[in-house]
Amino acid sequence: MVYAAVLGFGTVGSGVVELIDKYQDMIRRAVPEGICVKYILDIRTFPESPYGHLVTDDFEKIVNDPDISVICEVMGGTGAAYQFTKSALSKGISVCTSNKELVITKGAELMSVAAENNCRYYFEASVGGGIPLIRPLTECLAQEKITAVTGILNGTTNYMLTRMRDEGASFDDVLKQAQQMGYAERDPSADVEGHDACRKISILASLICGSQVDPGQVPCSGITDVIPDDFEAAGLMGCRIRLLGDLRINGNGDINVVTGPFMIPSAHPLASVDGVFNAVCIHGEMVDDVMFYGRGAGKDATASAVVADVLCAAGRGDSASGYGWKAELAPAYDPDRVLYRYLLRTGKDDAADHKDIVRVTGPVGKEGHMYLETAVISETAMREIALSLNAEAVYRFL
Amino acid sequence: MVYAAVLGFGTVGSGVVELIDKYQDMIRRAVPEGICVKYILDIRTFPESPYGHLVTDDFEKIVNDPDISVICEVMGGTGAAYQFTKSALSKGISVCTSNKELVITKGAELMSVAAENNCRYYFEASVGGGIPLIRPLTECLAQEKITAVTGILNGTTNYMLTRMRDEGASFDDVLKQAQQMGYAERDPSADVEGHDACRKISILASLICGSQVDPGQVPCSGITDVIPDDFEAAGLMGCRIRLLGDLRINGNGDINVVTGPFMIPSAHPLASVDGVFNAVCIHGEMVDDVMFYGRGAGKDATASAVVADVLCAAGRGDSASGYGWKAELAPAYDPDRVLYRYLLRTGKDDAADHKDIVRVTGPVGKEGHMYLETAVISETAMREIALSLNAEAVYRFL
Repeated sequence: MVYAAVLGFGTVGSGVVELIDKYQDMIRRAVPEGICVKYILDIRTFPESPYGHLVTDDFEKIVNDPDISVICEVMGGTGAAYQFTKSALSKGISVCTSNKELVITKGAELMSVAAENNCRYYFEASVGGGIPLIRPLTECLAQEKITAVTGILNGTTNYMLTRMRDEGASFDDVLKQAQQMGYAERDPSADVEGHDACRKISILASLICGSQVDPGQVPCSGITDVIPDDFEAAGLMGCRIRLLGDLRINGNGDINVVTGPFMIPSAHPLASVDGVFNAVCIHGEMVDDVMFYGRGAGKDATASAVVADVLCAAGRGDSASGYGWKAELAPAYDPDRVLYRYLLRTGKDDAADHKDIVRVTGPVGKEGHMYLETAVISETAMREIALSLNAEAVYRFL
Repeated sequence: MVYAAVLGFGTVGSGVVELIDKYQDMIRRAVPEGICVKYILDIRTFPESPYGHLVTDDFEKIVNDPDISVICEVMGGTGAAYQFTKSALSKGISVCTSNKELVITKGAELMSVAAENNCRYYFEASVGGGIPLIRPLTECLAQEKITAVTGILNGTTNYMLTRMRDEGASFDDVLKQAQQMGYAERDPSADVEGHDACRKISILASLICGSQVDPGQVPCSGITDVIPDDFEAAGLMGCRIRLLGDLRINGNGDINVVTGPFMIPSAHPLASVDGVFNAVCIHGEMVDDVMFYGRGAGKDATASAVVADVLCAAGRGDSASGYGWKAELAPAYDPDRVLYRYLLRTGKDDAADHKDIVRVTGPVGKEGHMYLETAVISETAMREIALSLNAEAVYRFL
């Protein structure tokens, strides 16, 4: 029997414990001796839970129990989660996590500690929830020269954009609904301002380029500027609005990462990804486009991805994989180098006269906004135009 | 250095050799010592090729060279390919293949030979071309109770259906175009009659249920009965026409596999998969729906998947995986048990009176066919209706 511990008995943590208990048959196909959760770390007690007797508030007891060979860190944050993860890895205990914040801030260090101690730091669940993504990228596509990764990486905002489009509703109304349904947090800023998506594309970018991509250096905007008229304009242009994380790698190996609202053509495979679903398109030179689609969040899907990592940690010693990145910072973005076509929204009486504006659509919708499409230009050039023409919102075209 | 041999210097074989040569940088991230093709087996000679000096017609030289630790079998067929694969595995040399015919007919035996000799038989490229699919299914979703797999598994027919829909063209005209563009073989029967898709869904079904699913027991029809009017009828019903392989597993673990033309709702993620692309939806109890999308065929994409397997074979000894199936036959289909909604096409003057016909659409299109939608019924019941009402074509609804 392989003994595991789960740090944090919240939504994902309880999902992990239940999955390991309920799907032991499936688990034994991959790990014939079976897997058993021996401890759950939480400062609360759970007298009603069938797993309540496993709960302890003593991390030292867990990490010093020689039975424990794998730990799931699903408590979140970068404080105690960091200390516990580092401590476990230092003792050769592999750690599986869904904690994207910790992965992007301390991942390089933690992977290096793991390598020194012949164990692994796994984080399949940190990007794309239940979607198999990190392992396919690092194993099935290891031979590929990746030139682009484009993803719908935040289910909350994709749900909101889908409702806004389908119902013509405002951002504020849809946010309230999303909060009532539990799809959005009470403080929704990490989602709606794009920071969550930004962390996730930064994790993928770090993995691909092998150096730390700092999300603080990635241009990041969210969906707070999106208004109902924008969906009408998108429709007129044969596009859908999506919040994307977008990574491009040019022939010199320069990487550029952005997060923000995009106009994407309706025929693009990401265009039909509605509601809380996530999807990530990866472009490799040989394999061309591949896309991975599924539930990017939620208790069961996220728990499933954490347990997939537990099976890997328990079943084999694949430490030879090229998986991981170094702590040295990779330049994440150069506003003069990376080129996009942009769409700018202005008020109805604003001028649209500029050499880099190639098309004007409008007035559109109730408020009669004008939509100005630029040539393929740098962000620096776009910012100049946006300032001079009083743009209220900016979209990139995919 | 890891030494490999490639059996068959055709389209995929030359792609494999070129990829390993050109992308050595990428390969060394996963296998630091690098990989080198030492032999290419072919009965032809290639004096013009930069790899011509590697070509030999002597398999014994390859399999008896102690340098060789991995072999790519990309020659196709079940004759020499089978003998060579078995011989290599018997000597502990892992084999990576794109040969779906060999995998579905002899896979169980070959995996058992591999297990006895502490090596592996890899076949990522046999289903879905370049799409990472077999490894995500067997590793990332190993903890999942899979209840359904539905896939667009044949690029030729998906390309033809896309052209027929977009241009209102007939099957015969589109087939000619596809043959001219090299998307269809001169003898297109394996594609258009559904046998290729049937083999691929049978490989996935065998992997999931752990026993041999015989494609000969899987009901299989292709797209030869599809006419332009059908696309108009599909549009009226909010559907797209796709050739699908469909696997269902019920609560008792009974499996049912079919291959044939389906009507799928436009909002379904498979509905927007156009042209030569393939996609596979997998439903797991915890993870819900996940989908994998990409190029299902073609030299570079298929070669990429073969090389992904070479990296696995070269880089690690993950023999503990639950990957594989036994030779004993699994019952693949019961026409009285599995239930679908069906759509039957009849001539314009045919009667449509039957208790299980729930809706009639038509006359539709130039030829004025009638389209009869059934209740959710067994195939046995559907066949009775189809016979009594002179149905010309049958679709399942997804």
